[in-house]
Amino acid sequence: MSMRKIGFIGLGVMGAPMADNLVKAGFDVAGHTRRRDGTDRLVAAGGRRAATITEAVRGADAVITMLPDSPDVTAVMHGPDGVIRHAAPGALIIDMSTVSPETARLVAAAAGAASLQALDAPVSGGEQGAIEATLSIMVGGAAGAFERARPIFEALGTTIVHVGPVGSGQLVKAANQLVVAGTIELVAEAIVLLEASGVDAALGLEVLGGGLAGSTVLARKGAAMRERRFAPGFRVDLHHKDLGIVLDAARTAKVALPLGELVAQLMEAVREMGHGSLDHGVLLRGVEQLSGRNR
Amino acid sequence: MSMRKIGFIGLGVMGAPMADNLVKAGFDVAGHTRRRDGTDRLVAAGGRRAATITEAVRGADAVITMLPDSPDVTAVMHGPDGVIRHAAPGALIIDMSTVSPETARLVAAAAGAASLQALDAPVSGGEQGAIEATLSIMVGGAAGAFERARPIFEALGTTIVHVGPVGSGQLVKAANQLVVAGTIELVAEAIVLLEASGVDAALGLEVLGGGLAGSTVLARKGAAMRERRFAPGFRVDLHHKDLGIVLDAARTAKVALPLGELVAQLMEAVREMGHGSLDHGVLLRGVEQLSGRNR
Repeated sequence: MSMRKIGFIGLGVMGAPMADNLVKAGFDVAGHTRRRDGTDRLVAAGGRRAATITEAVRGADAVITMLPDSPDVTAVMHGPDGVIRHAAPGALIIDMSTVSPETARLVAAAAGAASLQALDAPVSGGEQGAIEATLSIMVGGAAGAFERARPIFEALGTTIVHVGPVGSGQLVKAANQLVVAGTIELVAEAIVLLEASGVDAALGLEVLGGGLAGSTVLARKGAAMRERRFAPGFRVDLHHKDLGIVLDAARTAKVALPLGELVAQLMEAVREMGHGSLDHGVLLRGVEQLSGRNR
Repeated sequence: MSMRKIGFIGLGVMGAPMADNLVKAGFDVAGHTRRRDGTDRLVAAGGRRAATITEAVRGADAVITMLPDSPDVTAVMHGPDGVIRHAAPGALIIDMSTVSPETARLVAAAAGAASLQALDAPVSGGEQGAIEATLSIMVGGAAGAFERARPIFEALGTTIVHVGPVGSGQLVKAANQLVVAGTIELVAEAIVLLEASGVDAALGLEVLGGGLAGSTVLARKGAAMRERRFAPGFRVDLHHKDLGIVLDAARTAKVALPLGELVAQLMEAVREMGHGSLDHGVLLRGVEQLSGRNR
């Protein structure tokens, strides 16, 4: 079955540019989102508006979901008006949201029972990666389903890796979110230490970036954090949700993640400080708060 | 005063190749180290053996120290047979060891009282960077002294940044060691989480490296950590010492470093597990230990 018609559900900060890129790559995209005007952009780009999930899914070769959290995916997939009930036989269900591995396994089980294939394919690279079609895509599921989906992924990203069976994509994404949150916190601690010691943090970060302390976080976010520019980007609320997935996955796998546990608490703390809608770089404000350096 | 004659004290894993590179760059290098045969390599490279600190220092335009810890630097600098007492008037004292900012300030004060200039100029980049003359060098001290030392630094490294007054170099190095230790621990936690969840960690790390979770630690050490290759590299004992400097600096600056404090404890733990002489990547063994996954 060729991949031509795509139902795309969830046209938010990430989903909207991803759907655009699928249209650009020649796919016939029917988009659905809860916001009334949420499909205007897709229609302008050459896609179609689907008033309901059922309409988006009807006749689609593949259905992509890009939703905020596990309960959203569960509702959109398993409801009586949901994806699994209404997808065409043989259709490929690709959930690109960041949700728990358990949610991914439940979707795959229900899909299998309905003669559908399912992949969990969360992404990293943020809004910019979505716009520029340079996302990293980590894919869990059967090899055959992955190969069917490849033309879709190639329209969305540049690093596309089949990491294992169903749920594996979400586990790799969880590991990704653990490392990203921790690295942001480390850069924040370094900035506050340098500043509080009277050292020019810009010069300090320049040196760090050239050595073993270098990271993509430091390169992309170091200057904004130093300058206290916290417009998202990736919101604390979402990263907080993702760290919940990380800790659940750790508990399921029976592993201790000392830095992971602590950075989850620190993310919670900046959220409680009222920074939930700011970029996760605002972890720096938490370090300042703990150090009595609020300003 | 031109820079031609250099006294080099401390010809260990880092110091020996650095002294070689100074000889290659045309400097007249007199090397001293405590080990009896420790100067053989330098002599073979075209340098001179100094039997004592006094002999290394005599007539030198610049004196470089590359020693394990603050007490070593204090002894070599301030003793009756030490660098400051015996350096030629106007000589430049460059301590490239990783020591506390306080040690750097005491050296600079004593040097100033003896009509000498002093720089703290710790490095990152490890043995490989020392051999290849690609070190990052973070320099604290007066701008004039930094300019005098520039030809020396250019023979040793590629990223050379004057970060501020005396002690600033050590503070930036402390921030560097904080970020490096934390990043290694994060990569370790990611590997153990993936493995314990039955996901191929090699594939997982490949995806992480392509996105916001990417880091120099992951690129250079990820595979070795996954494969449990822990030959140093940079030893736990030394990183443990450096994290003591980080926590002292934080206390002096009155800042809280939640991840810094925790990773210092985890470094201590792997040291107590008997891994002090292994590469700091062995933090992974600590995560396994905490997770009951010893093997």
